[in-house]
Amino acid sequence: MGSTASILGLGAMGSAIATRLRETGYTTTVWNRTPAKTEPHAEAGSKAAATISEAISAADTVLVVLLDHDSVREQLDPHAAELEGKTVVNLVTTTPNQARETAAWAAEHGIGYVDGAIMAVPSMIGDEHARLLYSGDEHAYNTVLPLLETLGTAEYTGKDPGLASLKDMALLAAMDLMLLGYVQAIAMMRTAGTPAADTAAEVEAWLAAMLPHGRHIAAIADQGTYDTGGQSVDFDRAGIRSLITASREQGVSAQLLEPHQKLLEELAATGHGDSDWIRIIERLTIH
Amino acid sequence: MGSTASILGLGAMGSAIATRLRETGYTTTVWNRTPAKTEPHAEAGSKAAATISEAISAADTVLVVLLDHDSVREQLDPHAAELEGKTVVNLVTTTPNQARETAAWAAEHGIGYVDGAIMAVPSMIGDEHARLLYSGDEHAYNTVLPLLETLGTAEYTGKDPGLASLKDMALLAAMDLMLLGYVQAIAMMRTAGTPAADTAAEVEAWLAAMLPHGRHIAAIADQGTYDTGGQSVDFDRAGIRSLITASREQGVSAQLLEPHQKLLEELAATGHGDSDWIRIIERLTIH
Repeated sequence: MGSTASILGLGAMGSAIATRLRETGYTTTVWNRTPAKTEPHAEAGSKAAATISEAISAADTVLVVLLDHDSVREQLDPHAAELEGKTVVNLVTTTPNQARETAAWAAEHGIGYVDGAIMAVPSMIGDEHARLLYSGDEHAYNTVLPLLETLGTAEYTGKDPGLASLKDMALLAAMDLMLLGYVQAIAMMRTAGTPAADTAAEVEAWLAAMLPHGRHIAAIADQGTYDTGGQSVDFDRAGIRSLITASREQGVSAQLLEPHQKLLEELAATGHGDSDWIRIIERLTIH
Repeated sequence: MGSTASILGLGAMGSAIATRLRETGYTTTVWNRTPAKTEPHAEAGSKAAATISEAISAADTVLVVLLDHDSVREQLDPHAAELEGKTVVNLVTTTPNQARETAAWAAEHGIGYVDGAIMAVPSMIGDEHARLLYSGDEHAYNTVLPLLETLGTAEYTGKDPGLASLKDMALLAAMDLMLLGYVQAIAMMRTAGTPAADTAAEVEAWLAAMLPHGRHIAAIADQGTYDTGGQSVDFDRAGIRSLITASREQGVSAQLLEPHQKLLEELAATGHGDSDWIRIIERLTIH
């Protein structure tokens, strides 16, 4: 069990996964919508399946590395009966609800289902620094764990099939905002002739020093009361107003900073000016 | 010269600065709008000035640590003649243009003017980890440098008096967006019952690993052409759309992420879908 794997989809990530599994001794079968992409894998020792059915019947574990959620459902739905008793590992980036939807479909058809989120680029596959999050059926996960561990560091996040995706999305959202911070700082400093590389070096050192402040934010959010005596909504409002004014004075749009200001103004308008600014998390949550 | 200092304003920061200068051997005079705050300093060996004029006449260097730009101008403007030939170090948080405005006023009255931005909390004053940025009159800066160096690591950013403020604001903007990243991730993960502390620990490790990506952003921004073959506007649009959908599905507002999406949609609509996503920096800059 688990020593035969089919890989559906040979984009950069699917290809890296097929290669890694083949090189670590798995009997691998590959399928791709455009058959030409299977050729280098066939030459290296994988079986090239002409159809999805052929790929499914060749393996106990089916790894799905297609483009998106819609292509997963389009390709897999007609083959539900053939997948019964096998394990599907869905490595496509999906939203949590899409993962839950596919998991429900799989459960209905007696298919073991593990949803995965890959926090790595293809070149990292096989490296312990490649981190892969999984969620869904724990029994199915344990069945395929040795295989998953050959891809990188495997982490089971829980039975809710949406969890791996949710954690992936939460971390990506944090990264996205951090990278926008670089963009904003670079845009502001270059109005004074400072090269972006110089600004980025400054920002990198500064953010590295400020990263642990996240623990403070978390402690207040977990506590859930915002009468901390720490940085207040009103204090933060004055700060963000200066940032926005400074940016505009230099001819740089402050649109990336405006949602923060809007949240603070809403808190102040509803009588929370003295609260810790971290109360904005409550306004983000739709109750 | 420079061994006598007056400190105007005894909030937490002004108080820390007065204490540090006194303890390192400076003859210090303190003034505060509410005189009671001068008492502990007077007991510890500073002179308490009853008026601004008294404080100004007692020292070669006047450090201004008042509430904001308006209070600086309100307090100093009537004393321009008394300040002639002395050096004013303005440590109040201002926008770049406000710093330039005060510098022009000082130049008009023969006052040496240094604008400062303190990248530290009061408890760090006197520590080498307290970083203080300065800009403006280089001669004035060099005159008071020994004094400034007792406050923390001093860094001269240039003759434009707005530069220290600009750099301060750029770094604070980057920090602000990074901290919002924590808030967004915590809000998303707690919908699945994950404590904020657990999310913050994950985010901290992840962002630390991703920080060096800022160098890549900078290299592309400095190059100024966006046909890099790297992550495109269209690719990034799909990614940010998933993030926003995932956030909303979980009942968390995506408003912090929406400006990024808007910038990407504008780029796509103006024919830049194939450009590197870092082209958004051009849309931030008001040409």
